[in-house]
Amino acid sequence: MKKMWDGRFNEASSELLEEFNASIFFDKELFKEDIAGSKAHAKMLGECGILDADDVAKIRAGLDQVLGEIERGEFAFSVSQEDIHMAVEGRLSQIIGKELGGRLHTARSRNDQVALDFRAYCQNRTKELASLVRELISVLASIASEHKDTLMPGFTHLQHAQPISLAFHLLAYAFAFKRDYERLLSSYERNNLSPLGSAALAGTPYPTRRELVASELGFMGITPNAMDSVSDRDFALELLFNISLIFTHASRLCEELILWSSQEFGYISISDAFSTGSSIMPQKKNPDVAELIRGKTGRVYGNLIALLTVMKGLPMAYNKDMQEDKEGVFDSVRTASTSLVILREMLKTTTWRKENMLKACKMGHLSATDLADYLVSAYNEPFRLAHNITGRLVALAESRGKDLSELSLEELKSVDPRFDEGALSALSLEASKEARKSSGGTSNESVEKQLVLINDFLARAREF
Amino acid sequence: MKKMWDGRFNEASSELLEEFNASIFFDKELFKEDIAGSKAHAKMLGECGILDADDVAKIRAGLDQVLGEIERGEFAFSVSQEDIHMAVEGRLSQIIGKELGGRLHTARSRNDQVALDFRAYCQNRTKELASLVRELISVLASIASEHKDTLMPGFTHLQHAQPISLAFHLLAYAFAFKRDYERLLSSYERNNLSPLGSAALAGTPYPTRRELVASELGFMGITPNAMDSVSDRDFALELLFNISLIFTHASRLCEELILWSSQEFGYISISDAFSTGSSIMPQKKNPDVAELIRGKTGRVYGNLIALLTVMKGLPMAYNKDMQEDKEGVFDSVRTASTSLVILREMLKTTTWRKENMLKACKMGHLSATDLADYLVSAYNEPFRLAHNITGRLVALAESRGKDLSELSLEELKSVDPRFDEGALSALSLEASKEARKSSGGTSNESVEKQLVLINDFLARAREF
Amino acid sequence: MKKMWDGRFNEASSELLEEFNASIFFDKELFKEDIAGSKAHAKMLGECGILDADDVAKIRAGLDQVLGEIERGEFAFSVSQEDIHMAVEGRLSQIIGKELGGRLHTARSRNDQVALDFRAYCQNRTKELASLVRELISVLASIASEHKDTLMPGFTHLQHAQPISLAFHLLAYAFAFKRDYERLLSSYERNNLSPLGSAALAGTPYPTRRELVASELGFMGITPNAMDSVSDRDFALELLFNISLIFTHASRLCEELILWSSQEFGYISISDAFSTGSSIMPQKKNPDVAELIRGKTGRVYGNLIALLTVMKGLPMAYNKDMQEDKEGVFDSVRTASTSLVILREMLKTTTWRKENMLKACKMGHLSATDLADYLVSAYNEPFRLAHNITGRLVALAESRGKDLSELSLEELKSVDPRFDEGALSALSLEASKEARKSSGGTSNESVEKQLVLINDFLARAREF
Amino acid sequence: MKKMWDGRFNEASSELLEEFNASIFFDKELFKEDIAGSKAHAKMLGECGILDADDVAKIRAGLDQVLGEIERGEFAFSVSQEDIHMAVEGRLSQIIGKELGGRLHTARSRNDQVALDFRAYCQNRTKELASLVRELISVLASIASEHKDTLMPGFTHLQHAQPISLAFHLLAYAFAFKRDYERLLSSYERNNLSPLGSAALAGTPYPTRRELVASELGFMGITPNAMDSVSDRDFALELLFNISLIFTHASRLCEELILWSSQEFGYISISDAFSTGSSIMPQKKNPDVAELIRGKTGRVYGNLIALLTVMKGLPMAYNKDMQEDKEGVFDSVRTASTSLVILREMLKTTTWRKENMLKACKMGHLSATDLADYLVSAYNEPFRLAHNITGRLVALAESRGKDLSELSLEELKSVDPRFDEGALSALSLEASKEARKSSGGTSNESVEKQLVLINDFLARAREF
Repeated sequence: MKKMWDGRFNEASSELLEEFNASIFFDKELFKEDIAGSKAHAKMLGECGILDADDVAKIRAGLDQVLGEIERGEFAFSVSQEDIHMAVEGRLSQIIGKELGGRLHTARSRNDQVALDFRAYCQNRTKELASLVRELISVLASIASEHKDTLMPGFTHLQHAQPISLAFHLLAYAFAFKRDYERLLSSYERNNLSPLGSAALAGTPYPTRRELVASELGFMGITPNAMDSVSDRDFALELLFNISLIFTHASRLCEELILWSSQEFGYISISDAFSTGSSIMPQKKNPDVAELIRGKTGRVYGNLIALLTVMKGLPMAYNKDMQEDKEGVFDSVRTASTSLVILREMLKTTTWRKENMLKACKMGHLSATDLADYLVSAYNEPFRLAHNITGRLVALAESRGKDLSELSLEELKSVDPRFDEGALSALSLEASKEARKSSGGTSNESVEKQLVLINDFLARAREF
Repeated sequence: MKKMWDGRFNEASSELLEEFNASIFFDKELFKEDIAGSKAHAKMLGECGILDADDVAKIRAGLDQVLGEIERGEFAFSVSQEDIHMAVEGRLSQIIGKELGGRLHTARSRNDQVALDFRAYCQNRTKELASLVRELISVLASIASEHKDTLMPGFTHLQHAQPISLAFHLLAYAFAFKRDYERLLSSYERNNLSPLGSAALAGTPYPTRRELVASELGFMGITPNAMDSVSDRDFALELLFNISLIFTHASRLCEELILWSSQEFGYISISDAFSTGSSIMPQKKNPDVAELIRGKTGRVYGNLIALLTVMKGLPMAYNKDMQEDKEGVFDSVRTASTSLVILREMLKTTTWRKENMLKACKMGHLSATDLADYLVSAYNEPFRLAHNITGRLVALAESRGKDLSELSLEELKSVDPRFDEGALSALSLEASKEARKSSGGTSNESVEKQLVLINDFLARAREF
Repeated sequence: MKKMWDGRFNEASSELLEEFNASIFFDKELFKEDIAGSKAHAKMLGECGILDADDVAKIRAGLDQVLGEIERGEFAFSVSQEDIHMAVEGRLSQIIGKELGGRLHTARSRNDQVALDFRAYCQNRTKELASLVRELISVLASIASEHKDTLMPGFTHLQHAQPISLAFHLLAYAFAFKRDYERLLSSYERNNLSPLGSAALAGTPYPTRRELVASELGFMGITPNAMDSVSDRDFALELLFNISLIFTHASRLCEELILWSSQEFGYISISDAFSTGSSIMPQKKNPDVAELIRGKTGRVYGNLIALLTVMKGLPMAYNKDMQEDKEGVFDSVRTASTSLVILREMLKTTTWRKENMLKACKMGHLSATDLADYLVSAYNEPFRLAHNITGRLVALAESRGKDLSELSLEELKSVDPRFDEGALSALSLEASKEARKSSGGTSNESVEKQLVLINDFLARAREF
Repeated sequence: MKKMWDGRFNEASSELLEEFNASIFFDKELFKEDIAGSKAHAKMLGECGILDADDVAKIRAGLDQVLGEIERGEFAFSVSQEDIHMAVEGRLSQIIGKELGGRLHTARSRNDQVALDFRAYCQNRTKELASLVRELISVLASIASEHKDTLMPGFTHLQHAQPISLAFHLLAYAFAFKRDYERLLSSYERNNLSPLGSAALAGTPYPTRRELVASELGFMGITPNAMDSVSDRDFALELLFNISLIFTHASRLCEELILWSSQEFGYISISDAFSTGSSIMPQKKNPDVAELIRGKTGRVYGNLIALLTVMKGLPMAYNKDMQEDKEGVFDSVRTASTSLVILREMLKTTTWRKENMLKACKMGHLSATDLADYLVSAYNEPFRLAHNITGRLVALAESRGKDLSELSLEELKSVDPRFDEGALSALSLEASKEARKSSGGTSNESVEKQLVLINDFLARAREF
């Protein structure tokens, strides 16, 4: 077995070390934020009289040129540039000259520059993710609006508990994802402050006006303490946590889609595009996409715990450990963006097999509780006795291979002669569902109100 | 070696199983929330005509009696009660009779009851933690206000970088903890909705008015979907995450307190109450408390990942796995409450050894950057050459065993005859600190503004 | 809202601090290990001439008395004792006098004492857990031996894939748990070294013989470096990881038990003792115990990440952070012990509903692959064409509402006239299962061999 | 702000989905293992008479050609190949024809193929990492052998506790890393079994001999149950855990290197290659590499928790979630390989500033314990009184600005007239260190023995 490394530390190793230190291969993802930040900084330096207008113009034009080169794929990133800041500054210096290129760095340091770039990245992605979450909710609401009358078993402990509508079930997820949206918005607002101008850790002697950079870049204000500004990664941790909760919810939904796709359940049929089939078993479809989304929950949880671990116990201010803050965030953002789109599209094209859901409702005597309630309210039977009578009817149904909801009036009367038509309708699955008219319940009336709430939210939740 | 369990599953094992299922030994922590919730529920049932006024009065009086018994320690919890809801209801039934006791359960189920209790607990503790965070910030600000002129080295990479004030350093933490406060407040507001009335999972047929319970208990409104209401534990995950970030910050501060207490640093002396000494080495003090707080970061991170893991991929609606939601939250809350008080008190009684901090400022030629800046601004020297001259002065200082800030004008002139008094003052540590007047910087002027911001926050951040 | 703490730090707070520092309320769990360690230490001090024989005898008798008092519940633990070592030593000093009691501490320190106690605890519990894992495997093997002919669908992606036997399925878990056993054994052997005598961090000037203590306590040898001995918590992390993998496996098994208990699957019926029912729906059973075990996976993962976080980046040697090492381990050990017993007993009393498993085998055309294989081997049909023919037969079966395995020879011939009796038997679910005779396969022949392997293991895997 | 995705799911989205499902961009890392596995499989099929010798020869030659193409970088990977198995098989079919290429897949499936490839990868990397750990230990031992007489303070709670040698301190890490080596070896042996031939989940009807493939590939045997074989990822979790512990240890060492590099400590000087400097502050060096290694601990912990989360609660057998098993392992392996080399080389080139370590020994009265011990042993003074006398001497030393070890005999006698030359030598730091002759202690005699143990280990621990 050949070893990865031989014992000597020679040129190969020195390259290894260069790569170990470098962040360019991942932080190049920040190029837009870096260039926008530099342009704003140059403008501010001009407005504060630290650079003259002409220089500012040259710097900004040069930065635009670098941006174009990167966007057009003409820019060759290499490990020797170390990081995106050096890469951009290096190329800028080639274009406008070393001296002028160097002046851009007046009154800032790499510490506040990376803090700015990374924060701007997180803010931008937070907005995009919020928009994707909003679209997912919109699809859930749209499907729900068509399935208020689609009966299915409501589960607890994966056991049939009560008849509900598919609309009601999907709205549970819509409201969970709405909280995800709200958390993204909340993080966005809390962290919408520019750290630029904090310099290495203690501020700068130059007569800068940090607010100018902030407003140029769309921030609401500036961070209040320079040392905190270069040391704080709360904004990234919040994003990692918010994505983790999105996946908590998405993994639950995907678990259900997988269950519902099984031969045993058969509640849904995921469209071919989102499943893989078998050449000889045309009816077989693996819910690969739902499984992958569920599986990716591990990855986003891992990225969260990774950055929490990095930040624990770090003394002030910037430490190189913090270079480890980005890859996990990039990965979680990418994972969430793609998964949200794919989950949304999968839902849109899923076939909801109402007949199988209805059939399932007839397993488990779902209206037993309703019958007992009827005995209490119609005949003023004490709850305990009502339960007892219902239990005997369930036993009768079992013995005849029927569901409780399928018993005839005669069969009911054979157990208790008082039973009347009202009892029969109490047993109906549809009636059981419609009875639950309390706020937030599964009746159509309640579900309509929930749809109004969601649609109001969707109307308000335009881009922030 | 005797085994914990023998192979047979007999009576002992049946007890084991009872204990395994039971949550009473930890969820009794919810007794106040449980009783308050039941009282509000009974009142609502009365106002909606579901129970008559007399029964409501008896139930509420009975609940008050149970509350008193628990508070006075007269209540014997036992595993056979299974959980706090059964324990309270069981005792209530003894007091007011089984039939009436049972009526309290009308129009609710254990699923929404536990969702209410646990959410109310999290909301109450969120408020208390916010208050403790606020007090910690207050102490940091108060110490900072006395140390604007206390010079110490500002670090990056644990290397001396620039002279700063202790005030500025402590304010970095004050602003970090301020974000912790804001996150607690944000979670509080987002989750301030009552789930009660969602029943098992689908709402209830009774003509309830969930808003009445909500407002009685101080919630802003009700949760919108019953299935989501009994399945959602986002509020608990948010609390676990918010506590995790509090400990990220506290662990960083404690790391510094530990470093600063070392013989090598000697920047502070933690008071005896918060350290352990040695009978024969009176000067030796172990910073045990700071170490423990740093160590407890592991526990709160673990509690977060534990609940995230529990919730991943759970199908709707309630599953027994969710009984595992509480112990970790209780533990993190207790850990945070205690640690915040203790950290605050430790800071109050810490001695800040200014003389050692100042001495440390004279290691590392902290004003080298300032001198280079002076060369640029006063003599219009290009940055590169300014660096070169400064480097030669640092070498001179090293050779004389001095810090750069301790060089005389003659020594400066020996390297470059242009040097004047201005250069000497640029070299001064105090001047270096005072030069950083940018917003958020370490100069007294900037620090004063930061203190104003914090004090404004403290004045506004009364209880929410 | 009353605050947990008021602003002042008075007597109440001083108690708070005492509690914060103390570990007695959890580390009392180590009392047996602590006393056994002290007895062995005293004996060694005697054999090395550091204490005289008479003193040794008095110390050991005193320790036995303390042990008895604790075991009989006569010992009052209090926060002022700080930890179990002080509690035992304090009581010993009351019994045999302060001076002699103090001598026990010769040539050791609290750092190596706690390292010994905690390691001995982990070693003892590792043995017990291994024994419980072994018993679980034994139950799985025993059930498997009765179900070699119980057909059920083998799943991939939660889709029916091939017919297998229940025996084969359960043996998959038996072999997974066997690896858990092997990991416990491997950790036990690797960590079976005594740290006692390492003293505070650097060894001791007394002429001790650490090997004597080690062999008295059943260790294989002594740890090689004193500083490492008091700083190492690898043994605890290994235990936490080994328990995490036990729960990875147990959670997978429990997930299946929950699925199989659903109305849709109906493969099993968990006995009443291990599920909770409903008074009016006698057929309904919530698989609470399986859900709880699955849920407790979160807790044991959390305990692992907690201690990893604590240990990260701690400088040598002992730091107070390490007091946080125990509670998570105690919790994971307790959780694992109980869960392993309960899972084992639940499996023993579960009813395996063969008829439903068989019925499920007839969903999904599980023998399609076998038929295609038969076409290749019997008629030398190229694989691609064989697939095509099979696909047409599946379509035929679907159109007739049958499973492929239920087609008649005529129906086969209607698609391809070559079909003969051999094809019919290839279609049989039983034949499909029996065909898989490769090592590790699902045929009875292969399963028998797996049972031999497991039984050999069980015979060898007596207590270590 | 332009959104990442527009609302429509068109061609772009279909590509997105293809990418989402594909693993080729990361699992191509397995190409060697995949091709070696296929070659062994083909050979076995030949030896079992399932393929004829000629076909086997063509397949194996074709696979060698594919291997060469990949190694020479001539192979174009594309998303349409989906995974490495399809990429290799597709290219093979181009070379040797579709029919023959397809035959290679006889008696195996992608499930056991990926299980084999990934396991072989983990086994190979485990060996390489073990070798790198061994080399790191070798460097630590080599430095230790030169520093038996280099005095430094031994710390507890980051406070000076006792004088030790640098050799002793570094050996603490050597023995910790030795456990890491042992864990890697133990995992290697436990998991050294081939899963190939398990097919999709239940074995295969072909008359294969799985042992032939196993021995051809260097495995010790075959996995015992087919379903477990395709579902088991314990081997990957063990590797992730073993790497986590390597980083627990490395992060502790790096924390110390960072502390020791600070101006306050000044114990070491990391060579220029492994630190970054400043053009104007030549004496300043940021310990970037040590910080990065410490920081990367987060990443490897995160990868562990990610895969644990993925595997929790997955039903049998293969689920697509498990495609998420590889990237984290690849990342942890890469991170560990690089970090181990770099840490080793950094240690080799670090300058140990003995004079500063010695100076530090004179802070903290490190020999106080030794003096008290001397009072007990030489003058038979009770321990309590010995402590009291020592405390008074410490106070005297403090008042004279000296360390206890620097007091003169006169000064000793001023506190207690009995003091003699023996007391003076008890106070010597060197004597204090040399007194600790117990096994594992810091005396040269004890350290020599530890070096023998380590060197024996290194001699034995050749490649496994």
